[in-house]
Amino acid sequence: MVTIKDVAKVTGVSPSTVSRVIADNPRISPATKKKVREAMEHLGYHTNIHARNLVAKSTKAIGVIMPSSADKALQNPFFPEVLRGIGSVIHERQYSLTLSSGETEQEILAEVQRMVYGSYVDGVILLYSRVDDPVMSFLQERDFPFVMVGKPFEKLQEITHVDNDNFTAGKQITNYLIASGHEKIAFIGGSKDLFVTRDRESGYQSALTDAGLPNNDAYKIHTEFLKSGGREAVERLLSLPVRPTAIVVTDDLMSLGVLSTLEESGVQVPRDISLVSFNNAYLSEITRPALTTVDIHIHELGAQSARALIERTVDKTVPSRRIIVPYNIIYRNSVSEQ
Amino acid sequence: MVTIKDVAKVTGVSPSTVSRVIADNPRISPATKKKVREAMEHLGYHTNIHARNLVAKSTKAIGVIMPSSADKALQNPFFPEVLRGIGSVIHERQYSLTLSSGETEQEILAEVQRMVYGSYVDGVILLYSRVDDPVMSFLQERDFPFVMVGKPFEKLQEITHVDNDNFTAGKQITNYLIASGHEKIAFIGGSKDLFVTRDRESGYQSALTDAGLPNNDAYKIHTEFLKSGGREAVERLLSLPVRPTAIVVTDDLMSLGVLSTLEESGVQVPRDISLVSFNNAYLSEITRPALTTVDIHIHELGAQSARALIERTVDKTVPSRRIIVPYNIIYRNSVSEQ
Repeated sequence: MVTIKDVAKVTGVSPSTVSRVIADNPRISPATKKKVREAMEHLGYHTNIHARNLVAKSTKAIGVIMPSSADKALQNPFFPEVLRGIGSVIHERQYSLTLSSGETEQEILAEVQRMVYGSYVDGVILLYSRVDDPVMSFLQERDFPFVMVGKPFEKLQEITHVDNDNFTAGKQITNYLIASGHEKIAFIGGSKDLFVTRDRESGYQSALTDAGLPNNDAYKIHTEFLKSGGREAVERLLSLPVRPTAIVVTDDLMSLGVLSTLEESGVQVPRDISLVSFNNAYLSEITRPALTTVDIHIHELGAQSARALIERTVDKTVPSRRIIVPYNIIYRNSVSEQ
Repeated sequence: MVTIKDVAKVTGVSPSTVSRVIADNPRISPATKKKVREAMEHLGYHTNIHARNLVAKSTKAIGVIMPSSADKALQNPFFPEVLRGIGSVIHERQYSLTLSSGETEQEILAEVQRMVYGSYVDGVILLYSRVDDPVMSFLQERDFPFVMVGKPFEKLQEITHVDNDNFTAGKQITNYLIASGHEKIAFIGGSKDLFVTRDRESGYQSALTDAGLPNNDAYKIHTEFLKSGGREAVERLLSLPVRPTAIVVTDDLMSLGVLSTLEESGVQVPRDISLVSFNNAYLSEITRPALTTVDIHIHELGAQSARALIERTVDKTVPSRRIIVPYNIIYRNSVSEQ
């Protein structure tokens, strides 16, 4: 049987390079890929992939884990969009995809344990990053291949993750509000347990501090990444003695709740309150006004995570890495000069 | 080992009723469920479910098959929403969910074959109904448990399916346009291969015929269930010598493309052209104007299909049935009197 080592020997590259070619790692040059693939074909390696999969009990399946039940999470267009990105790679590589449906941390852990112990999947993509996550600890202890969308709480060097630079994005979009003359800027984010919230909030905070603006705790609200979360948050902000003139909202679906609640309260956006958002889900261009938002390239986050995971399931020795997907701000009509 | 038959004997109901209680079939009365469950607990049946699953190699997993790649299908909010409904039941019953990612009919068939031959799932939900579908034929030939969201092309009595009455819905919403004074009414639908398109179009046609309105083939357009499909369709309608004054669009995402193309062409909705839509995806209330649309209760379609499938995987002898989820029209601001 032809092995990866045989292919490596013939082509003069290392076995891990051959693994990376199989996984279509973008860091391998096209020339090397061509050479290795030709050798694989020549040696008849292709047919043996299946044999190897059988021996190694590869399932050619991956698990995708959401932070809450499918019923809840899939309300937020982030998840279908990231699944689209994952799906594009899964499809190309002929893998299949198992989706979590658990609601609580314990249920999700039990699901992941079933996937791992039952050998239902080759690896797992975690679509969130939370403080003290037992799912992550379990996967690490078992040395089971996984990749995270977001930034791991600790062991940053050990865990392959795909993220945006959420700190800088939060800072840049807050600076844009400051440059537009706003001084009373509120922040609406998801749970403090989620890293994405922490990073975006740190960026917001840093922009205020750099501009010498005061820190007002009443202006910082943490709620659920849902439309209802946005509604609740805005009700609290509107009840304050001094209302903000601008709000940084860390999620487009939340922004939808913010917008409709402001409209019902007779507050006009952007005339009375300016709004900036995150994600650039497709709904952000349908709203009136259309939202100025940070495009985090959700589809790409999904695709990169699937590529990195497949690479890891093929070769466990591939070093961990951090993949930062660039963001950019899409300027629309939800901000006015103060 | 305690069997379903033992439970049936003790409680005086049939074995298939016991199966239905296990599957939480809504047609079984609460009193019967209580009685059967108490007997199950008393006899110690519960622990044996797992034993039985082991023997029967139950995977407690179901496959969910979309009509095109995840990358394409999940653009349409119908699919995340139907997955939410499926997910709610899956979660309750502690099943897992494997999602298709194939693009072409052949790829999807190959995926389903892998699921069936590899015993990866106990059953399959088809999220579409297409003419001459090889996937459906394959599942039927193998007598593999499956349920369809939509109406099967043939063998209507043999296949459990969850559908809306799309004919009547199409007729009723077209009648509403006719009652508002419209006579030149166009139709924009998905592929003619899809039953959902055929049924809605037949309803539209029937309303026109009943009202004695002429049949104009140029007013009927078939395209993709995507925003781009709506854009293309409207460009064709606007190029006609006599433009319609109203359009029936069979999908909210298409309607989004229709709306933006009309807006770019300087055509105002509903002043110049009225619009009615289907599905009541959440985007239909964000658009300006908000869409008058048929609420088909997507979440419920998903939940019912998952319940029916699990019932079938637990007991293959359960008779096939047709489950019709009621629709209702949500009247918003996209129609004007002619």
